[in-house]
Amino acid sequence: MKKFVNNVDNMLTESLSGFALAHHDLVSLHLDPNFITRKSKANNKVAVISGGGSGHEPLHAGYIGAGMLDAACPGQVFTSPTPVQMITAAEAVHADKGILFIVKNYAGDVMNFEMAAEMLAFEHATVMTSDDCAVINSTYTEGRRGVAGTVIVEKCIGSIAESGADLADCKALGDKVNERTASIGVAFTSCTVPAAGRPTFELSETEIEMGVGIHGEPGRQRETMREADAIVKDMVDAILADFKAKDLKLNNLVGKNNKGILLVVNGLGATPLMELYLIYNTATKLLEQAGFNVARTLVGNYTTAIDMAGASITVCLLDNEIKQHWDSPVKTAALNW
Amino acid sequence: MKKFVNNVDNMLTESLSGFALAHHDLVSLHLDPNFITRKSKANNKVAVISGGGSGHEPLHAGYIGAGMLDAACPGQVFTSPTPVQMITAAEAVHADKGILFIVKNYAGDVMNFEMAAEMLAFEHATVMTSDDCAVINSTYTEGRRGVAGTVIVEKCIGSIAESGADLADCKALGDKVNERTASIGVAFTSCTVPAAGRPTFELSETEIEMGVGIHGEPGRQRETMREADAIVKDMVDAILADFKAKDLKLNNLVGKNNKGILLVVNGLGATPLMELYLIYNTATKLLEQAGFNVARTLVGNYTTAIDMAGASITVCLLDNEIKQHWDSPVKTAALNW
Repeated sequence: MKKFVNNVDNMLTESLSGFALAHHDLVSLHLDPNFITRKSKANNKVAVISGGGSGHEPLHAGYIGAGMLDAACPGQVFTSPTPVQMITAAEAVHADKGILFIVKNYAGDVMNFEMAAEMLAFEHATVMTSDDCAVINSTYTEGRRGVAGTVIVEKCIGSIAESGADLADCKALGDKVNERTASIGVAFTSCTVPAAGRPTFELSETEIEMGVGIHGEPGRQRETMREADAIVKDMVDAILADFKAKDLKLNNLVGKNNKGILLVVNGLGATPLMELYLIYNTATKLLEQAGFNVARTLVGNYTTAIDMAGASITVCLLDNEIKQHWDSPVKTAALNW
Repeated sequence: MKKFVNNVDNMLTESLSGFALAHHDLVSLHLDPNFITRKSKANNKVAVISGGGSGHEPLHAGYIGAGMLDAACPGQVFTSPTPVQMITAAEAVHADKGILFIVKNYAGDVMNFEMAAEMLAFEHATVMTSDDCAVINSTYTEGRRGVAGTVIVEKCIGSIAESGADLADCKALGDKVNERTASIGVAFTSCTVPAAGRPTFELSETEIEMGVGIHGEPGRQRETMREADAIVKDMVDAILADFKAKDLKLNNLVGKNNKGILLVVNGLGATPLMELYLIYNTATKLLEQAGFNVARTLVGNYTTAIDMAGASITVCLLDNEIKQHWDSPVKTAALNW
């Protein structure tokens, strides 16, 4: 394993310190317990907190700032943060309208955020993301995994919270976005967890893992490497099948009156932008052939799996409310408009 | 080689098409000859054009937009664009105050931009970037290579051009920024050029290439893998030695009255943000120990070498003028503030 690391035990702290130094105008870092907050505490709004294992950067700390998160709790790489982190973060950012936790659906995260929620002295709610349509139940997860769609949930909840909405409205929007969002990933290589020092799994030069999780969890199946268009078509088809299965009144969302979709092409860590844009080109064509209008776009590394080569595709079925909250101003390290 | 590619011959066109679709609010794509311009042509300003081989995304097309480039000419991967691309782009964006070419110092780019300049009907000037302090002369280059410092040159020239400055002032600022900027990179793995289908060079699990170029050109030497702090120290020392050798009156730039530095920690393609922030943490400490004030920061993948694992460090010695033009508003796919 060749990584920029001094001592694996200190890697997270050193990286968080660098993040906080680099973005000292936006965030403050608190160590032991580890959490990151906005530099300036917001007032009179629902405080929006996310967190999870590290290794998915810029998720979640990269999304702290005006219009998005109030705080993030980073666990060790691929390891849930602790309830103490979440509670201490909540106490630091609580702003009189309650706490909203955004939690990706992994057993450890869910358990620890539940424990924290039970111990919270404040009004609180939780939105659980489960956008990964690749598999139901897998390593670390009962039910569907939360992956890159989490960024859309965090953006929209962050926006409505900033507007002064109450806790119930924040949760309702988050749940709606999650319901209308589907993702699937594909791996060309494994990731390497620093503490393990070797790849989590092995893929030969002719194999890909379709439906891979962002921790290298198995997906739908091991498949044979093929041209990009064929891989992307299978991914788009999986997303469209998921929407159909969820009976989201697709017919009302397709055609002249549809509000369009948000298409995210997300790199898992080691796949160049040049390839991500090629994926975007193909995915856009396929989705438009299926009757969708790609109205909003995000292409880049937004929810990574350390150093995995591969990519994921996420589609969110927009409506006026979601579009408004996606478009609203945001000022974070990783999203800024 | 596992990449998202259909046919290697079409990869660039498909990727450019995806880029233009994804950022249709910012850019327009012209094929055959290939160049990308701002969506809305600017008026009465120096038109700023860059270009070079593809594979370094988001360089250069990701920097097209208000406050930065007017156009970019992408060559095939690691291959210079042609004079016809440059001339056609210049004709498309010329806005009555002349053309400024920004050219990274590689023999093919320099030759083709010179040919284009000679054939241009407009007033023109060229700024050549040569910020890589690793080696003098290497594969593809006589003199020093232009690497991630090019982004700073493009940002500052873009800003002063937007303010209505004439061609001579744009060139003078670009040359000054280049002179005050030094970079060095390190590779943990080779990149793989799609048309070649295999890594450009081989590094064992215990080797790194110190001073690597952004096409995988050899650097200073093959070294033994070691802890991040030791690698970063050697990189920072190389940059400081370069400034001293250039006699930039370092004493006037260090200490209470210095205007500070811009520190860029750039990923070469496959190195995660978590590691880039760790590098940033160490580099900041070392530079502050050397008397510098890190006043501005950029951390992420801004000048890549396809899928190379590794990173580069760039330092620009700020003055009031450079700081002003770095800070000014910019709206492009890859830089937005």
